[in-house]
Amino acid sequence: MKSRRLIALLTDFGDRDGFVGAMRGIIAEISPGTQVIDIAHDVPPQSPLDGAFVLWSVYQFFPAGTIFVAVVDPGVGTERRILCVQTSRHLFLAPENGLLDLVLSQEKIVRAVQVTNRRYFLKNVSGTFHGRDIFAPVAAHLSNGISLDVLGERIALVQPSGGFLNVPERGEATGRVLHIDRFGNIVTNLRFSQGGRKRNVDITIKRRHVCGLYKTYAEIASGRLGALVGSHGLIEIALRDGRASDVIHVSAGALVKIRIEA
Amino acid sequence: MKSRRLIALLTDFGDRDGFVGAMRGIIAEISPGTQVIDIAHDVPPQSPLDGAFVLWSVYQFFPAGTIFVAVVDPGVGTERRILCVQTSRHLFLAPENGLLDLVLSQEKIVRAVQVTNRRYFLKNVSGTFHGRDIFAPVAAHLSNGISLDVLGERIALVQPSGGFLNVPERGEATGRVLHIDRFGNIVTNLRFSQGGRKRNVDITIKRRHVCGLYKTYAEIASGRLGALVGSHGLIEIALRDGRASDVIHVSAGALVKIRIEA
Amino acid sequence: MKSRRLIALLTDFGDRDGFVGAMRGIIAEISPGTQVIDIAHDVPPQSPLDGAFVLWSVYQFFPAGTIFVAVVDPGVGTERRILCVQTSRHLFLAPENGLLDLVLSQEKIVRAVQVTNRRYFLKNVSGTFHGRDIFAPVAAHLSNGISLDVLGERIALVQPSGGFLNVPERGEATGRVLHIDRFGNIVTNLRFSQGGRKRNVDITIKRRHVCGLYKTYAEIASGRLGALVGSHGLIEIALRDGRASDVIHVSAGALVKIRIEA
Repeated sequence: MKSRRLIALLTDFGDRDGFVGAMRGIIAEISPGTQVIDIAHDVPPQSPLDGAFVLWSVYQFFPAGTIFVAVVDPGVGTERRILCVQTSRHLFLAPENGLLDLVLSQEKIVRAVQVTNRRYFLKNVSGTFHGRDIFAPVAAHLSNGISLDVLGERIALVQPSGGFLNVPERGEATGRVLHIDRFGNIVTNLRFSQGGRKRNVDITIKRRHVCGLYKTYAEIASGRLGALVGSHGLIEIALRDGRASDVIHVSAGALVKIRIEA
Repeated sequence: MKSRRLIALLTDFGDRDGFVGAMRGIIAEISPGTQVIDIAHDVPPQSPLDGAFVLWSVYQFFPAGTIFVAVVDPGVGTERRILCVQTSRHLFLAPENGLLDLVLSQEKIVRAVQVTNRRYFLKNVSGTFHGRDIFAPVAAHLSNGISLDVLGERIALVQPSGGFLNVPERGEATGRVLHIDRFGNIVTNLRFSQGGRKRNVDITIKRRHVCGLYKTYAEIASGRLGALVGSHGLIEIALRDGRASDVIHVSAGALVKIRIEA
Repeated sequence: MKSRRLIALLTDFGDRDGFVGAMRGIIAEISPGTQVIDIAHDVPPQSPLDGAFVLWSVYQFFPAGTIFVAVVDPGVGTERRILCVQTSRHLFLAPENGLLDLVLSQEKIVRAVQVTNRRYFLKNVSGTFHGRDIFAPVAAHLSNGISLDVLGERIALVQPSGGFLNVPERGEATGRVLHIDRFGNIVTNLRFSQGGRKRNVDITIKRRHVCGLYKTYAEIASGRLGALVGSHGLIEIALRDGRASDVIHVSAGALVKIRIEA
């Protein structure tokens, strides 16, 4: 007997309403014993940009064969497509709204289908909760062993262009905010190319200057802003003993200028 | 060997204090290997009304035999009874405070007992945390296979009258708010009888009028309020690109008038 | 085959960013099938004091052999040590910042090592996210059966002095706030010695007086403050139908005076 595949869930459904609970119940019903791992459920509501970042930040750490189900879906019930994408190690199920862009910019797309086969959905599909009616049952059937190809037509998916920006050895570059994390750290899409020197960095964001590059949060003086290369390998802005996002009011997508002197 | 039964947890305990963690530890101790599924733990604190809605909204999606443990319990430590109720497919364990009313209004009560047998509780029962001291150990013993009947005396439980209201083909009706969800949508207890026409709906809530009925959130014009039949089959009020509950300040229990013109 | 050991996770990582998700993925990768139980992840950010309380409040309820992983780590990336401590029934993995103090004040320390062996870490260890890079993989290897001793040098750990204070039969004592819980209850480190009489208690906290001792929250008059012995056996201050912490603005560490008349 082929063992069931692990399902990893990412949503903006929170823990207040039972939205994720319904999904878990359906998976237990269709695919008993399947292990479900929660990535995060308190992603900023209706923000596929933040969801894309969180998914990218964790997927590499999961076992080969993991089925990722990502539901941050402001267009639920509209004509937006639902994608199932096979990469070399994993399977991704998500609405086509940018949620998979960061992951797929880094991975080879082996196969992609548009999910349309109602045989694997719940009988009644609502216009407002496809996490329950489509994503959970489809994931459970995938865990049971059905092939991608029974879910719908193959589609040619263009690999998204990289969402990350390597900063130059010297000079300027303009990137973007990808995510604000729980601690108020502002994560950008800027990264150093390997071996690059990392001094004399000057960052401008919302007319605010942040100078210097630190190695740990604890190195920053209390009450001061500082930049560092975070755990994702990306430049982030932190406030020691506070929340950078309380001082610099930005959200995912905002511009960030960086200036490097050799 | 009879396999252990799935336990589904619903509480208002949040994720800050280890209240749910203690329950999970006790279940793992008494009934090792039992699968525990979280329904929701951030139900509005001390609101059995909201808890009743969330439980009702998910229970049908869980496998037969699931043991539901619902703890939203402002009367903890008082003389309120603790119920264990068998329906045709599931088992429910909860304080008697309305938490089970919506579910039981839709289900046949096969058996009900008042849980009093301290043999299945923790040795020391506190006056303030029965989730840990009573509900978790009792659920774990149920998962291990004890019968309902050893928990206490059978009681005659009157089936609660339906908490839902079918709106008429034309004319007016007055219902109630059941729940405000994470996205600020205001869910009512109003529903259409099957096959009913669904046009020319006019809803009054807190002196505010909401007109028309939409199929998806995305159909509502940006910044506008609209009503739609949500994923639970109930009429809910949403604000496109915002939170309806930020504009209409209500909580569970508030009155909602609906007027339908044929 | 030796079965894998249960891992219990406690962090201040929340559910917004995938921090816990990454840890869960790594555990599933290194130690497939290991059961992971969440204690709490919304501990007040960067507060080892609150984390220490939550860990202490739940650990006794977990099965023998459980591996506790506690990550509330404002000093991440600095020279603070990482501890792995064996007690008579459990194993604890945490930064050395007070997180284990309440537990270890109550338990015999059987063995303690400073975790330094990079063989059990992820290949690249960031300066900002040791939960992912060190704690999760080390816990997974422990679940797989490696010995404490391969993780690093044994260290002599002094047992922390008790964080709890027994109140006298009569007279005064000064204790501290240990934790504010989700419901706004203010939990102190004050407790009654067994058999002590429990009347005529007068508590002063932030110049506010709270008189009398109740058995349940429901006994307190609506809108009034009251003290009671909470589910942890510690004196806590509650506001009936409200949040005590909204009226008395304190955080973990604040002073609490108690006066008992026989």
